[in-house]
Amino acid sequence: MDKSYAIGVDMGGTNTAIGVVDRRGEILFRSSVSTVDYNTGESYAEALSATINELISRNNFTGNVAGVGMGVPNGNMNDGTVERAANIPWAKTVAVPLAAIVSEKTGLPCKLTNDANAAALGEMVYGAAKGLKDFIVITLGTGLGSGIVAGGQLIVGHDGFAGELGHVRTVRHNGRLCGCGRTGCLETYASATGVARTAREFLEIYPERETLLRSITSRPITSKDVFEAARSGDRMAIEIFEFTGRILGEAFADFIAFSSPKAIILFGGLAHAGNLLTEPLKEAMDKNVISICKGKTEIIVSQLNDGEVAILGASALAWELSVTN
Amino acid sequence: MDKSYAIGVDMGGTNTAIGVVDRRGEILFRSSVSTVDYNTGESYAEALSATINELISRNNFTGNVAGVGMGVPNGNMNDGTVERAANIPWAKTVAVPLAAIVSEKTGLPCKLTNDANAAALGEMVYGAAKGLKDFIVITLGTGLGSGIVAGGQLIVGHDGFAGELGHVRTVRHNGRLCGCGRTGCLETYASATGVARTAREFLEIYPERETLLRSITSRPITSKDVFEAARSGDRMAIEIFEFTGRILGEAFADFIAFSSPKAIILFGGLAHAGNLLTEPLKEAMDKNVISICKGKTEIIVSQLNDGEVAILGASALAWELSVTN
Repeated sequence: MDKSYAIGVDMGGTNTAIGVVDRRGEILFRSSVSTVDYNTGESYAEALSATINELISRNNFTGNVAGVGMGVPNGNMNDGTVERAANIPWAKTVAVPLAAIVSEKTGLPCKLTNDANAAALGEMVYGAAKGLKDFIVITLGTGLGSGIVAGGQLIVGHDGFAGELGHVRTVRHNGRLCGCGRTGCLETYASATGVARTAREFLEIYPERETLLRSITSRPITSKDVFEAARSGDRMAIEIFEFTGRILGEAFADFIAFSSPKAIILFGGLAHAGNLLTEPLKEAMDKNVISICKGKTEIIVSQLNDGEVAILGASALAWELSVTN
Repeated sequence: MDKSYAIGVDMGGTNTAIGVVDRRGEILFRSSVSTVDYNTGESYAEALSATINELISRNNFTGNVAGVGMGVPNGNMNDGTVERAANIPWAKTVAVPLAAIVSEKTGLPCKLTNDANAAALGEMVYGAAKGLKDFIVITLGTGLGSGIVAGGQLIVGHDGFAGELGHVRTVRHNGRLCGCGRTGCLETYASATGVARTAREFLEIYPERETLLRSITSRPITSKDVFEAARSGDRMAIEIFEFTGRILGEAFADFIAFSSPKAIILFGGLAHAGNLLTEPLKEAMDKNVISICKGKTEIIVSQLNDGEVAILGASALAWELSVTN
């Protein structure tokens, strides 16, 4: 019999949010555990499982849950492990078989993937990608993450690490130094930190130009500062978004040559900049895309709630489990 | 009952080769028709169908053929048409529903795809990619074609035109002018014509350097000339392959960030250069790939016969048909 509920788990760098989701994408109940208050992956997984079990039994869903889906930084969908996650103390150096432990302790099928893939599944099941078989979700947060769906299937690669589009170097091969140790990665330009970096560069390159951004001196400039300045008509701030959108659009032209998606869906903090970002982006994409694909790929800003999409996307993984298990 | 034979059709710019293939990848019988001696796609498709029918009935395979698979320049697997094929007189401006016509005239299911996708299927069913679910085939001929398989499935995109990796501009965004009208496309460097172009550039940039290539004056230098010079130890010719391999390796690093393939398989004339090309390629790929994927993707030179792979790959499409029909 079809189960009515799925558990969606959004493991963040500090806290892990857990939700019971129904088939329409409503989050009915929530709970949470700390991500970092544990010395080992095993003890974290046990605490998480206990919270899930408690959430299910307290609300009388026992026997009616399809499974547990998890969105996890550096989560590997192929083998259900989390590994080399720089910000998770218990997964910095070892690979933790998180899905297997949670499955054992809850008695439910469990599958995990990384945050951006979970977002892609969330868009496919509940959001802008409903009914689409070929699309890419780009998450524009501190970095740039991506979830690629082709032929209705999430592209995870032979090792589970496909979709690292924040680290393609399409546009500025010898550009900015990236946290990954290389130069010119897309996310050094197209992300919240990238926008702040561009602002600092512009202020230095154009010392004579007037801009609201120059008045921010007591703390580092953020992408939010740039957004607010742009919204109030500040010319330099607008140009910073144009610069960012242009680089993103040039990169998208190459992504289209790869998987020819029907839509590229923007998600995350920076996506809220809306037209400030998407207009220059579309222009650059159209100018750079191969002619046979011109005008075919839509740019969509996600309408899903930032606070919910991670849980929803993770729960979408659990619905998949109910089909295959 | 499972059928024992498949028809593989390799539509080239001049001739169309047809083969009857068995399940082990043996081409048992061959025939051919002209590609260009027809005014309309319909008359071509009818001549092709008649030849296929004749080949089947003459060899008593009637009732034992799974279907017809075709590798076609600019072939669109989603709708079975060929469109905007610059070198095919009857398909320059119109979209011809080739698969539908051939299916009607032969009474067999028919599916088509472009040449590079057919090569990818050929490698998957009969070649180096046997058993692999995530790989990319790069065909290095006059241009650079690509067939991408992810999760065991050919990536065709929402419109059938995915996998145009010859036209990513990862490495030299403002580089050489491409036949597609843009600049810096990968195939302007990494292809037979790209190698010849590099040779001409090197001769001009280094007028003082001695090289066997300088003695070729009565006709344009070809990639074959560069290969032969490199094989006999000519330093400049070797450097031309190093330059080509390096660009290809840098581009492959980005492809890996996209789909994380287990192998990238090189096919076509230029792939015969072997180590001359693959050594600098691997070095550049390793240097440029994101650390989590380092050392995981193999570079393989196809062992399939150039003259056979297109027919074999096309026939692989027909086996797929026998599963789904």
